Amino acid sequence: MNPNIETFIGCDCPFEMADIVLFGAPFDSTTSFRPGARFGSSAMRHESFGLETYSPYQDKDLTDCRVFDSGDLELCFGSAEAALHDIEARAEEILSAGKLPLLLGGEHLVTLGSVRAVHKRHPEMHIIHFDAHADLRDDYLGAKLSHACVIRRCHELVGDGHIHQFCIRSGDREEFRFAKDHTDLHPFCFDGLDTLTEALARSGAPVYFTIDLDCLDPSAFPGTGTPEAGGVTFPQLLEAIRMVARTNVVGADVNELAPMLDPSGVSTAAACKVLRELLLALSE
Amino acid sequence: MNPNIETFIGCDCPFEMADIVLFGAPFDSTTSFRPGARFGSSAMRHESFGLETYSPYQDKDLTDCRVFDSGDLELCFGSAEAALHDIEARAEEILSAGKLPLLLGGEHLVTLGSVRAVHKRHPEMHIIHFDAHADLRDDYLGAKLSHACVIRRCHELVGDGHIHQFCIRSGDREEFRFAKDHTDLHPFCFDGLDTLTEALARSGAPVYFTIDLDCLDPSAFPGTGTPEAGGVTFPQLLEAIRMVARTNVVGADVNELAPMLDPSGVSTAAACKVLRELLLALSE
Amino acid sequence: MNPNIETFIGCDCPFEMADIVLFGAPFDSTTSFRPGARFGSSAMRHESFGLETYSPYQDKDLTDCRVFDSGDLELCFGSAEAALHDIEARAEEILSAGKLPLLLGGEHLVTLGSVRAVHKRHPEMHIIHFDAHADLRDDYLGAKLSHACVIRRCHELVGDGHIHQFCIRSGDREEFRFAKDHTDLHPFCFDGLDTLTEALARSGAPVYFTIDLDCLDPSAFPGTGTPEAGGVTFPQLLEAIRMVARTNVVGADVNELAPMLDPSGVSTAAACKVLRELLLALSE
Amino acid sequence: MNPNIETFIGCDCPFEMADIVLFGAPFDSTTSFRPGARFGSSAMRHESFGLETYSPYQDKDLTDCRVFDSGDLELCFGSAEAALHDIEARAEEILSAGKLPLLLGGEHLVTLGSVRAVHKRHPEMHIIHFDAHADLRDDYLGAKLSHACVIRRCHELVGDGHIHQFCIRSGDREEFRFAKDHTDLHPFCFDGLDTLTEALARSGAPVYFTIDLDCLDPSAFPGTGTPEAGGVTFPQLLEAIRMVARTNVVGADVNELAPMLDPSGVSTAAACKVLRELLLALSE
Amino acid sequence: MNPNIETFIGCDCPFEMADIVLFGAPFDSTTSFRPGARFGSSAMRHESFGLETYSPYQDKDLTDCRVFDSGDLELCFGSAEAALHDIEARAEEILSAGKLPLLLGGEHLVTLGSVRAVHKRHPEMHIIHFDAHADLRDDYLGAKLSHACVIRRCHELVGDGHIHQFCIRSGDREEFRFAKDHTDLHPFCFDGLDTLTEALARSGAPVYFTIDLDCLDPSAFPGTGTPEAGGVTFPQLLEAIRMVARTNVVGADVNELAPMLDPSGVSTAAACKVLRELLLALSE
Amino acid sequence: MNPNIETFIGCDCPFEMADIVLFGAPFDSTTSFRPGARFGSSAMRHESFGLETYSPYQDKDLTDCRVFDSGDLELCFGSAEAALHDIEARAEEILSAGKLPLLLGGEHLVTLGSVRAVHKRHPEMHIIHFDAHADLRDDYLGAKLSHACVIRRCHELVGDGHIHQFCIRSGDREEFRFAKDHTDLHPFCFDGLDTLTEALARSGAPVYFTIDLDCLDPSAFPGTGTPEAGGVTFPQLLEAIRMVARTNVVGADVNELAPMLDPSGVSTAAACKVLRELLLALSE
Repeated sequence: MNPNIETFIGCDCPFEMADIVLFGAPFDSTTSFRPGARFGSSAMRHESFGLETYSPYQDKDLTDCRVFDSGDLELCFGSAEAALHDIEARAEEILSAGKLPLLLGGEHLVTLGSVRAVHKRHPEMHIIHFDAHADLRDDYLGAKLSHACVIRRCHELVGDGHIHQFCIRSGDREEFRFAKDHTDLHPFCFDGLDTLTEALARSGAPVYFTIDLDCLDPSAFPGTGTPEAGGVTFPQLLEAIRMVARTNVVGADVNELAPMLDPSGVSTAAACKVLRELLLALSE
Repeated sequence: MNPNIETFIGCDCPFEMADIVLFGAPFDSTTSFRPGARFGSSAMRHESFGLETYSPYQDKDLTDCRVFDSGDLELCFGSAEAALHDIEARAEEILSAGKLPLLLGGEHLVTLGSVRAVHKRHPEMHIIHFDAHADLRDDYLGAKLSHACVIRRCHELVGDGHIHQFCIRSGDREEFRFAKDHTDLHPFCFDGLDTLTEALARSGAPVYFTIDLDCLDPSAFPGTGTPEAGGVTFPQLLEAIRMVARTNVVGADVNELAPMLDPSGVSTAAACKVLRELLLALSE
Repeated sequence: MNPNIETFIGCDCPFEMADIVLFGAPFDSTTSFRPGARFGSSAMRHESFGLETYSPYQDKDLTDCRVFDSGDLELCFGSAEAALHDIEARAEEILSAGKLPLLLGGEHLVTLGSVRAVHKRHPEMHIIHFDAHADLRDDYLGAKLSHACVIRRCHELVGDGHIHQFCIRSGDREEFRFAKDHTDLHPFCFDGLDTLTEALARSGAPVYFTIDLDCLDPSAFPGTGTPEAGGVTFPQLLEAIRMVARTNVVGADVNELAPMLDPSGVSTAAACKVLRELLLALSE
Repeated sequence: MNPNIETFIGCDCPFEMADIVLFGAPFDSTTSFRPGARFGSSAMRHESFGLETYSPYQDKDLTDCRVFDSGDLELCFGSAEAALHDIEARAEEILSAGKLPLLLGGEHLVTLGSVRAVHKRHPEMHIIHFDAHADLRDDYLGAKLSHACVIRRCHELVGDGHIHQFCIRSGDREEFRFAKDHTDLHPFCFDGLDTLTEALARSGAPVYFTIDLDCLDPSAFPGTGTPEAGGVTFPQLLEAIRMVARTNVVGADVNELAPMLDPSGVSTAAACKVLRELLLALSE
Repeated sequence: MNPNIETFIGCDCPFEMADIVLFGAPFDSTTSFRPGARFGSSAMRHESFGLETYSPYQDKDLTDCRVFDSGDLELCFGSAEAALHDIEARAEEILSAGKLPLLLGGEHLVTLGSVRAVHKRHPEMHIIHFDAHADLRDDYLGAKLSHACVIRRCHELVGDGHIHQFCIRSGDREEFRFAKDHTDLHPFCFDGLDTLTEALARSGAPVYFTIDLDCLDPSAFPGTGTPEAGGVTFPQLLEAIRMVARTNVVGADVNELAPMLDPSGVSTAAACKVLRELLLALSE
Repeated sequence: MNPNIETFIGCDCPFEMADIVLFGAPFDSTTSFRPGARFGSSAMRHESFGLETYSPYQDKDLTDCRVFDSGDLELCFGSAEAALHDIEARAEEILSAGKLPLLLGGEHLVTLGSVRAVHKRHPEMHIIHFDAHADLRDDYLGAKLSHACVIRRCHELVGDGHIHQFCIRSGDREEFRFAKDHTDLHPFCFDGLDTLTEALARSGAPVYFTIDLDCLDPSAFPGTGTPEAGGVTFPQLLEAIRMVARTNVVGADVNELAPMLDPSGVSTAAACKVLRELLLALSE
């Protein structure tokens, strides 16, 4: 009789043989509006059994991929720095083993832990960022480590011209001004993504890919802390993911599912499907 | 003083004079993920009073149609075969009276009861199937009578080339392979429906029309057991229904509303409108 | 230490210096299906702090506008006439001070109070009406003052050809017939709005602008008493609002958010954004 | 094939043979806090099928009683007087036929319609009132016909000493002062009910029995507009009902279930059980 | 890096060394009213991490007990007999290893699988049954294997005088009559349990202990398919569990948590605590 | 026309004339299980308008008390120390003005800010603590500033014998051991409170009174992060509050309402009533 192992569906490859390693960061302490993203990774794992492993979009099956799911980290609520430290350590451990770390948030701040680890190995890396929010504040009510500042902190690591933002439709005026000078911001949708990913794919530059699921329209994804009307559709997101997957992705994350905010369960189901499609696309 | 008769709005024609007869099958025992479709037919009847009988889409009014609503069958939970038997008997009774049976599910398995009855009278019939799921498994955890197998069971009755599937975006690899050889599967959307329905209309072939409401995108219809992102819009579904209604429809059903899964009530309201438009379209 | 002032975000200009004055009418006594719009204005104020004051759609910021939020009226439930009287009085007070009254409902009937006040000063005014429902019944179960009759009552004030209805997709047959003779009804969407607003802008005619938020598709806005599938998208509504704002708007309202009907909070967030964009568009 | 008749479980006696007649008043227009009681009677009817007809408390079965359920009245929202008129007319019709009218609210104001009808036949009648709220205001924001004034209006009919209030734990200071002089108010619980009902039973005086379900503690009955902590338990209420039933009850009602406010369904289930026990107790 | 093992909190003893073995039966196909108990065992496991392992009631700690959690069986929806077969097989496997099987439902029918296995080894066993419902019907709409018949089926195995029922407050008249002749039924509460358990403890007779959590009052436990007002309190249940644990318990189960029916999560938390206290009490 | 001032009902005394000052601390960053207490203070203010200002329990009226409500602090999420600093500063400001600070949480950690301020003025103070949880951990996952450690941090300030805990029914073994040596812990209920408060009242010792609302049973108060079955009833809590109010209370707080976790609204209503009764009891 065996103990009860719970993974994202089809992600039961042993660690040693895996190409991709999932790890969850159930953290949302800096969320300023509606918390609950801490339950995102666990809900995706739990509800993934309502999903098929086969994708008719890509005609691929998760059972043919090699993915290991290492479960959720046990993070300290109330200390952003401690949480980021543990996330970074886990990402480094995965990178050291020559595997791709795929982080499941949690709030978007968790990305910084993973980006720090990837950046040490790939200082020239680019970041492709799908989000409703610019996340470019310098601080939020005095805090430098906040979900609203995460891309600004990333910018301090990777510098001008290395951050590519899509679907952005919310931020204060100052963030949009900052973006004009320092990042490659595409408002509202994916316009320009095809050109960008073709260029990045040609160059072979390492790419960190961070998906804040609130880039989706709230009609498709209501279960998130700060829903922003006017987002992209699910098929648009799938197509965009496949574009990015053609570049040299060296790290990735999926964030900001707050499952309790959507009692219909549709948001969790959509997040599971996004993850399946991302895993399939990243498995060559 | 009269007893409290509850029908779908505008469906109060006496049985004898009716062209179409509604009957509900509150059954969801084989649902493998989230149950609740058993409450679908009753919720549609109950909430239909928030709807107008007049449709500006078709410029027709339910009060001009002749529809009788016979309420819900009392079905045995836990025995799929017994439930299918009672559904088949009711459909036969309606067909014997020369009327069109319109079944309200319940989970999709209930379709099989109605299809069996119609098939006896129309062995050459075609099935037009709107759904997110292929429903073509041979068995599900050993059960042959499962919502996930219902179209496979129908195929055993009507054979190759007689099943036309639209909007399909979920299934295991085996189901899609089966479809390639045995059914006319159109993934994701309604592409090809116009050609098909024109041909069927010309031929006068009898058509059974089964609508799994989860063909709709979850943004429009979250209240269903297994929501699948990437579906069709409500206006697309209405247009498709009007296309099918131009063929020789001899039986129909609407399935898989699980009203408790959508506390906003939007799914039930949408289901009511789909039924109104279907009834209007079928009433020449 | 100051008392706790709660306004819609960024609307803290003193009354004397304001161009636009918000006032809430928490009334839904005549709602015939699902009540709850009484909580709309208060929820918008409360949840607006999840919103940015800056709009990347218009590149404007609420902090640059002059808007005063006077809170909610205390209205008598159970008496439509008394409630309308108080709404009219408040609108008159705002108009007397040379400011634009912007009413937050509540059910759609509240519009009549505001329209009465504006009509006294602008008897030649036009009404631009976004709604899923025609609201043109002469009475509803005997009541002349009902949400279902509000535009019919407005028509008695402004007469033929002065009411322009968009997105309408529900009503009884009689309402559509009435519209044919007396109003300028555009079903389903915003077709024709560009031509209309250009003509009105050229003429300088005073315009009252009433938005029933259920013109939006329920996927974007489920939290409303009578959701009607088949509505417009959020970006379409934003664009339409900017068109209308180019005319000579002398009064406006936003209605029919019933926040408790959408536990995800997405509807309230969307309503807040609609109001932000409307305020920005009306602030030249 | 029969149309779909929906009654409260076990209440399918023909009108002519019935001793008790149920009728619903789906009205809540004057509710000042959270509406939704309009759905109470219909939810009780709908959910009663989760209940047994047999009561182990009284060792009686509803199938042995003679109860007719006449469904819900169609009442005009927005006009309290019109609604009360229709309720009174229905109660009179039932009384004329020599049967006991049992009204299902709706908000508590509906009681006034029924009391008016009963009072015409029994001018000396007593009222036994279970409620968390005194409902003794002279007006509420100017309205004389409000749920908060209903017992005050009843007092104008029956006069001092004829109203007996139990479980009262909310009201303004003025209401408690009024009660001191004019009604027989028992705060918080059922203390004194045994003595009272014995005396009334001995005298044979006609009694109108009105139950506002919010007399129950919110832990047992959260689904009501204005829940008040500190109420009675379900077994206490059952026992109290049986005490009152020993008097000469000539009319009764059960009010203030707002089913949508309790997504667990427990409140509706409790209301159904209260009604079952009341019907069994009234059927000698 | 380890895979993600999910157990009930503190139940991570290896199988070989365990005294008690948990196993889940996520089955609710025969539920006649509101389904959802299929999610009970998994929710208890998932939410147990909000619980402490230490009990101040018993001054014991789960970390000192030896419990193995084998996760959920994969059961076939739609076939009660197949599901019972798999449950029986698992219980037998645990009994063969000399350990106590503790089954987590699921609907109450699952008990029959476990009882069949225990009965083979202990044909003289007694059953102590906590429940709101008698579950003594001979069939339910024709089905012999239904949640409403489970104790009747058990009676066919163990015979008269071996079933002891407590807290029963719902059933049809026939069930109560059957109980009078064949079972030891204590209505409403735990009266008589102390005497019974003392006698059973003295005799050393083997006892199967089945807890339908709806014995609790719905105020403490709303998340169940058929809530019945008038139940016992949580402290009463804890005390009763400790009484039963003093007998020779050879098998046990905890059933009928339907977590989605209680969005507050209180029911799942209560179920977790019941299980903790039961495990602690059974670990001498 | 005035701006929209929102206070807890009846708390509109100007600051200068007030005896008691309310202030909210919308903080829950260290909550380890289910967040949402950040919305507690604002929900209480918002929903208090469903409450009467008059209490029949104490025959007093809030309109006769002098309470100022200063609204919510704007606290930094993600930094417990910064939040505590701001809370302490506000409490000091209130104490300096000679008024009693009454803090509304937020999670229980916020108490520490207020206790620090009060302790400076009253180093010999006692703390009376109502809670389901001991909150005596030395750290939680490494964090010293956590809701699970707040009373331990308070103990470091006030020392042995100055902390009196009631209703405690959850904690790890170590916490209960710590309590045995250092605090005056009364498990499960209020036993011993009468003796304690009489002694404290006689001595005139300054008392800080902290109420974690989860001391209430979850049936009465489900809307909290970590509900613990087996708590006290609402009337028991009211009585206990009145006992404590007879001592020399120099500071107080009410914590841990998480309104979104209870969609019925009953928890918020109960919290409002607790606050009303506390304010009335503290206003001699």
